[in-house]
Amino acid sequence: MNQTYWLRNVRPYGGVAEDFRIDAGRIAERRPASAAPVAKRDINGCQQLLTPVLVESHVHLDKTLFGQPWRPNSAGPTLKDYILNERRVLREIDAPIAARAGALLENCIARGSLRMRCHVDIDPEFGLHHVEAMQEVRERYRDLIDLQLVVFPQTGLISRPGTAGLMREALQMGVENVGGLDPCGIDNDPIAQLDFIFKLAVEFDRGIDIHLHDKGELGLWQIARIADYTERYQRQGRVMISHAYCLGMAPWAQVRPLAERLAAQGISLMSSAPADCAVPPFLELRAAGVNLCLGSDGIRDAWSPMGNGDMLERAFLLAFRFDLNKDEELAAAFEAATVNGARALGIDEVSVEVGQPADFLLMPVQTLGEAVVARPARQVYRAGNLIAEQGRLLESRL
Amino acid sequence: MNQTYWLRNVRPYGGVAEDFRIDAGRIAERRPASAAPVAKRDINGCQQLLTPVLVESHVHLDKTLFGQPWRPNSAGPTLKDYILNERRVLREIDAPIAARAGALLENCIARGSLRMRCHVDIDPEFGLHHVEAMQEVRERYRDLIDLQLVVFPQTGLISRPGTAGLMREALQMGVENVGGLDPCGIDNDPIAQLDFIFKLAVEFDRGIDIHLHDKGELGLWQIARIADYTERYQRQGRVMISHAYCLGMAPWAQVRPLAERLAAQGISLMSSAPADCAVPPFLELRAAGVNLCLGSDGIRDAWSPMGNGDMLERAFLLAFRFDLNKDEELAAAFEAATVNGARALGIDEVSVEVGQPADFLLMPVQTLGEAVVARPARQVYRAGNLIAEQGRLLESRL
Repeated sequence: MNQTYWLRNVRPYGGVAEDFRIDAGRIAERRPASAAPVAKRDINGCQQLLTPVLVESHVHLDKTLFGQPWRPNSAGPTLKDYILNERRVLREIDAPIAARAGALLENCIARGSLRMRCHVDIDPEFGLHHVEAMQEVRERYRDLIDLQLVVFPQTGLISRPGTAGLMREALQMGVENVGGLDPCGIDNDPIAQLDFIFKLAVEFDRGIDIHLHDKGELGLWQIARIADYTERYQRQGRVMISHAYCLGMAPWAQVRPLAERLAAQGISLMSSAPADCAVPPFLELRAAGVNLCLGSDGIRDAWSPMGNGDMLERAFLLAFRFDLNKDEELAAAFEAATVNGARALGIDEVSVEVGQPADFLLMPVQTLGEAVVARPARQVYRAGNLIAEQGRLLESRL
Repeated sequence: MNQTYWLRNVRPYGGVAEDFRIDAGRIAERRPASAAPVAKRDINGCQQLLTPVLVESHVHLDKTLFGQPWRPNSAGPTLKDYILNERRVLREIDAPIAARAGALLENCIARGSLRMRCHVDIDPEFGLHHVEAMQEVRERYRDLIDLQLVVFPQTGLISRPGTAGLMREALQMGVENVGGLDPCGIDNDPIAQLDFIFKLAVEFDRGIDIHLHDKGELGLWQIARIADYTERYQRQGRVMISHAYCLGMAPWAQVRPLAERLAAQGISLMSSAPADCAVPPFLELRAAGVNLCLGSDGIRDAWSPMGNGDMLERAFLLAFRFDLNKDEELAAAFEAATVNGARALGIDEVSVEVGQPADFLLMPVQTLGEAVVARPARQVYRAGNLIAEQGRLLESRL
């Protein structure tokens, strides 16, 4: 690829056609589309839609079975069955984390996710093995994707002796975020868990990301406590609550005051927009100023064989979940899979402004709404270079 | 294509590999896969999954904007707004029904739906224009897809003078099914509507397909009445209720007796498996012996820009809706998009048994579950001939 070239005739966000000058991996200039012939060293965008890259805000790469032979889900009915089943499945699988997570990561990159937050299990049983493996994976793909990690106490924190020490070690190794998990439902000691993770986050100056599956009033009460802790420990803009099904279980009149606290404290929400249960009410929260982003959660793992890592499809699923059919609503779903994710992850905004890294997508559709509905095959650019198209990395590293 | 050939090394439904002999457009023989080299006149299936074709049980081809430039949804908030908006949009569109419906139909065929039921609007304003156009479309694609029509009183039947006569005319023209629409919610005279459509169906010996959006107890009461009419007019196995959201709104203990009546009367249900509202409880109904099939409903029309006509994706959306993750559940979702549809439409079973038409799909996946999860590009065979792959008809007729 040329160090400097013009990307001609593209329509940013579906607007009028422009030409983009790419220089040294960044967007150096934008101008209205010129009618001049496209020079050989330049690229003709052919009136395609140009957008920022997608942001995968919540995924579990370390546990995926992606790229492995199909494996029927074998878990029993309870949450405990699923956790034990996962441990058994991962013990039985020969392929190392690097192979499985790498295969999935390449798939995610190929579909346009170039910013990502990945939760990584720790457990007294296998210690920091997953963290070490994921740090290697991150290094291997550092030039293609900005990947941040969350140390995630899947089997409990306060209730699982040995886990707290592992979390501290993971942060010392450079993991960017402190994870939490149902302070009530899993640990049965919410204040002890929140005390621990907020103090640890302050000590290491890291972000916080809490899985909250607890339902109804129990969930809502914990969201209020997380807002308390965010305020007390001055973690505004650094805290995410993942899933938060409970916000979709109560009338908006009850949820609204909580939404206002989330907005005031800059606490983001992450949803995978599931359709079998309540989910945070996207449009109402958005109107209240709450930043909601999207994640795939588990992909082809021992929890479920579902998922494909396509964040444009996740935006579609959000739209499907809430019957969004107006263009401005579909554009909001697209934002949830792009700018909202960047904001939640505490990273630079994903945009196509001059001065930004030349990371972007090209799609053969007319509008953002059509992109969300149609989820077309797309071209993925990183630092000005085409790295993937038709759902495939041009150069696999597997 | 050869009149007779062997399709070698395919795995029906994901089972062990077999060879299929195709003769004169039908499946003439099946045998365990031979190890012999593949002759030049034969086809190597390369261990792909072989399945029956997909069945689209509910679509509105006549109203689609498929293939037209992206059009933002412009409807107001109420149901009446949507109906009036659709009338306005369809008046404004230059492309005739044959072009729009044809484009969508080709897309559906290319994704593997070779059996289809299409609802067609009648209305005193435009009379039988849609029916005539759709009968032409059907003729044009008769060798590629088995398409049956339902005459559909979108703006009301009893409450809309002139509609009843149009319905009779449509049946005289050969439309296969009598349509109904919210006997309470739209017509405000349920007994008059049911009297009319059941008597008409008996007179012409046709099927019945009733859109039922009415919610809660109002919907459940109408389902009981439809069962009464089915029994009284001996229409067992000939009646479908489309949508029936109300069945997902009441506790199963209340729904079960109704489900037992549906099963006993051979009344099928159709769902598009939406995620923003209640839907009939798939697994419970299935266990109770109720035949539930899937449909796209509207695709890229004035009601919503969503939809793509891929019935394998619809099976995925059903699985997503109910968090199906076990292989037998995913296979049930596949059945909803295949055999259940054929049963509901009153047509020959779609299967790959000897003697059946050589209509089938080939997919590069391991199991039915993986097919539903991954929705891969597929090869579509009609009467033994490859007619589509990679989502495209080999020979467009547009």
